[in-house]
Amino acid sequence: MPEEILMAHGDGGKLARDLVAKAFVEVLANPILERLDDSAVVELNGRTAFTTDSYVVTPIFFPGGDIGKLAVCGTVNDLATSGARPLYLSLSLIIEEGLPREDLDRVIASVREAADEAGVVVVTGDTKVVDRGSADKLYINTAGIGEIPEGVNIAGDAARPGDLVLLSGSLGDHGIAVMSQREGIAFSTRLTSDCAPLNRMVSKMLEASPRIHCLRDPTRGGLATTLNEIAHQSRVRILIEEMSIPVKEEVASACEMLGLDPLYMANEGKLVAVVPASDVEDVLQAMRRSRYGEEAVIVGEVVLGEPGRVAMRTRLGTTRIVDMLSGAALPRIC
Amino acid sequence: MPEEILMAHGDGGKLARDLVAKAFVEVLANPILERLDDSAVVELNGRTAFTTDSYVVTPIFFPGGDIGKLAVCGTVNDLATSGARPLYLSLSLIIEEGLPREDLDRVIASVREAADEAGVVVVTGDTKVVDRGSADKLYINTAGIGEIPEGVNIAGDAARPGDLVLLSGSLGDHGIAVMSQREGIAFSTRLTSDCAPLNRMVSKMLEASPRIHCLRDPTRGGLATTLNEIAHQSRVRILIEEMSIPVKEEVASACEMLGLDPLYMANEGKLVAVVPASDVEDVLQAMRRSRYGEEAVIVGEVVLGEPGRVAMRTRLGTTRIVDMLSGAALPRIC
Repeated sequence: MPEEILMAHGDGGKLARDLVAKAFVEVLANPILERLDDSAVVELNGRTAFTTDSYVVTPIFFPGGDIGKLAVCGTVNDLATSGARPLYLSLSLIIEEGLPREDLDRVIASVREAADEAGVVVVTGDTKVVDRGSADKLYINTAGIGEIPEGVNIAGDAARPGDLVLLSGSLGDHGIAVMSQREGIAFSTRLTSDCAPLNRMVSKMLEASPRIHCLRDPTRGGLATTLNEIAHQSRVRILIEEMSIPVKEEVASACEMLGLDPLYMANEGKLVAVVPASDVEDVLQAMRRSRYGEEAVIVGEVVLGEPGRVAMRTRLGTTRIVDMLSGAALPRIC
Repeated sequence: MPEEILMAHGDGGKLARDLVAKAFVEVLANPILERLDDSAVVELNGRTAFTTDSYVVTPIFFPGGDIGKLAVCGTVNDLATSGARPLYLSLSLIIEEGLPREDLDRVIASVREAADEAGVVVVTGDTKVVDRGSADKLYINTAGIGEIPEGVNIAGDAARPGDLVLLSGSLGDHGIAVMSQREGIAFSTRLTSDCAPLNRMVSKMLEASPRIHCLRDPTRGGLATTLNEIAHQSRVRILIEEMSIPVKEEVASACEMLGLDPLYMANEGKLVAVVPASDVEDVLQAMRRSRYGEEAVIVGEVVLGEPGRVAMRTRLGTTRIVDMLSGAALPRIC
């Protein structure tokens, strides 16, 4: 087996077949994938969540994860925040000619590890190879399927005045961890990405209260963008408290140095929940008992007022609007 | 709205939201996509086919289609050749900064048109933008979901000695149509890609005989590779007749000029069916009555003999092995 990926690994011939057998099927081993038919065949019943994301993070390896772990966690989290139990993933790679085989193997091992932790199975896949200079090492798409339990109705338009806004932990760890690896960025931290599968925490939260209104993972665009989306879809106003929002010291200082705002920084292992006030204590306890929710806090509330707006009471006691960004924040963070 | 795609179109902020609203949701309009939640929610019951493919064809526009049409047809066909009725697609774009907005709009219009023809709905999506030089204009991933009717059991390992091999039409039209557009290729033809959704033809074939054993669309690697896969998975020998295999004059001469073999050329609107002899006449008639199967023919048979091998009786009456390619054929044809 050559030590680099060649164009011929993507052309459907013998090398392609060997790569699929050794690099994917053997590592991701499961009876559905092993059939290698044009589609995976799975059994599904009832309301099903279906989602997709392409991952173009650079660099592909970063503290706390890599593009493979990210591609599994990101899609698992999109299913989980729809109230679904994630079941099956597809995995599609666009590889730049010349990618070291070792790098590919590391990424696929991460895919397997993250999938195992989340309890999902990669059942179907695809590999394309593009010539040098036509991609940046490796892009991954994962699509995912999950079953939505009866009685669960999570949606971006379900927030109601009186609901409280919960956040599972500190903001910006993923964004700053990835930035710290970029060429020309003159800082280093011990910070690692928060990249993690959140579906087990979501299960516990839904056991605590099936009446959770909204769940979202604040990835690209961060908490500010996620809350704006919810405020917009639900036609409500959301008010958050700056004092309540957890931001690690390293993230705060890196953001200050780079002129960035942690509210807009990407997270890959955090979630926002909008919950009726009556159920907040139960949901918060469920989060705090979960591996990735120990530092969960209440950060704000849904209030009457101009629909579609997010506002923040600052440390100084003033209130300011938290808008969506209109320019570019950090590119290629996921 | 700017006339080119900017990095900020991919960062989750206002420009990204506007692009999603105008370029995708408005064109692909349907109530599931319009919800814009993290996952689409659909109702499914029973055996479900799930598949994914990334498309990296260059150029992104070619005679008879573009990357958008290809991304819909390719995934629809992977579902159809699993015996499934295609229902839902995801659509994920990796866009190179600077792509003219007009090109994006043309591609998305093609996605809509092909989806309408196939009767499928794009229910969820994602957009990433990468900096200039980090991708080649546009890559698209589509994943797809379909329902498998009761009684249908299509699989690559189901071919049996005595079965006949049917092909829905001429070989290599897609490969040569794309090649004819590449820079530095010194020929032009009036040939167009065969890119088409085959699910309606497959439905008619399965009505004619639910006992069809294998279905495959001979894309990357062409008919030769597809038959090798079936021979390998089913542990049978397949014998084809060179005289029976339809190849258009333009394809034959372009292949001769380029030193290529039509048996290995990519197709995007053809299928191979392996059918018990008793049902062949009915299936062939169903194909010939379909828009994309008018020229369907019997091209070979499954025979006793060395498992995993494909052989061809040539025009000269000799028999030769048709192996999988071990080097690269045509890169980035799909």
